[in-house]
Amino acid sequence: MNKQHAIGDLSAARHALTAAERGRRNGRAGVVVWLTGLSGAGKSTIATELEWQLVTRGFSACLLDGDTIRNGLCKDLAFSAADRHENIRRIGEVAKLFADAGLICIVAFISPFRADREAARRLLPPGQFLEIFVNAPLAVCEQRDPKGLYARARQGKIPEFTGLTSPYENPDNPEMEVRTDRLVAGECVKQILLLIESKLLPIAPDSPS
Amino acid sequence: MNKQHAIGDLSAARHALTAAERGRRNGRAGVVVWLTGLSGAGKSTIATELEWQLVTRGFSACLLDGDTIRNGLCKDLAFSAADRHENIRRIGEVAKLFADAGLICIVAFISPFRADREAARRLLPPGQFLEIFVNAPLAVCEQRDPKGLYARARQGKIPEFTGLTSPYENPDNPEMEVRTDRLVAGECVKQILLLIESKLLPIAPDSPS
Repeated sequence: MNKQHAIGDLSAARHALTAAERGRRNGRAGVVVWLTGLSGAGKSTIATELEWQLVTRGFSACLLDGDTIRNGLCKDLAFSAADRHENIRRIGEVAKLFADAGLICIVAFISPFRADREAARRLLPPGQFLEIFVNAPLAVCEQRDPKGLYARARQGKIPEFTGLTSPYENPDNPEMEVRTDRLVAGECVKQILLLIESKLLPIAPDSPS
Repeated sequence: MNKQHAIGDLSAARHALTAAERGRRNGRAGVVVWLTGLSGAGKSTIATELEWQLVTRGFSACLLDGDTIRNGLCKDLAFSAADRHENIRRIGEVAKLFADAGLICIVAFISPFRADREAARRLLPPGQFLEIFVNAPLAVCEQRDPKGLYARARQGKIPEFTGLTSPYENPDNPEMEVRTDRLVAGECVKQILLLIESKLLPIAPDSPS
């Protein structure tokens, strides 16, 4: 036992891994792909297929959606305005952690408020946040109503339902818009894949830190 | 435009990636390496070096510690008992997300309460949560006092300080204990690396889902 040596050795970390250093190791930086749109617009369908396509192409990718978040990290939150803001705030923070770890992090939430999405964007360096507007007319989304939520909202059983009794704020300047009433999901996924591949930031192995 | 076709295509995801399927692709499952111990015991030093060693060996790894969490995901929380429980709860949930994404997720927090650590363990399948007790006597930690916190706590400036005015509950049955008053940090990291490599669950490519 050499207490002084042990204490001395513990006092300074020899190697700390920054996001930039990790990016150089991976040859690219992580990125957040943020899908926003009305319930029924197709976010989850596209996100699930997108994750599969990325992973089968050898990328490290993950998906944050209602299933992974609402029953876990945010299970203490309900659907009040404050709780919805806090839900999106936490998702933005977790997405940033994944991007910092070098992953392509797909987020699929209605995220109706522009300010919340912009706050998530500001957590990341420029170019590492791709906002995808998954867009279909409200009437189409309500006709699809995959979870029966529109029907329940029309019956007054869901207060503050986005698109009916609570606003959805269209993205001002998203990196991409996909119209799911005009394109099949597979085509939307293809377009997003091309966008991601064009935006992945290559980092030269010899770039200075 | 073929609206019926578009809607039909959106109604069912063709490919959903489960944690088990992802594990088979990676050849192993993700894992959480949870470092617990007093302030000054050496958690951050060990965690930082451990992350570096893992990434330079080609593993996907990430680190959740005070710097990454307290200024981001948990910046709404203070240090009351309720907030400290919630802090550890969220960290456990995020660590699970990283493990599900196939990473080795290192967590470095005092996490003084056994029940909170056990709750984080229960989020994961058996074998995918490795609790590491980073242990040094209180007197040694207080002598090191790398952040000056013990001094401030002794002056009464930090209420409920773990080890002095708030309890630290030793792990009952951790996967490993490292005594940082007896071993240098590099040796502790080596032992933890050996543990991780022995615990990484290989998943046969042809195992049934």
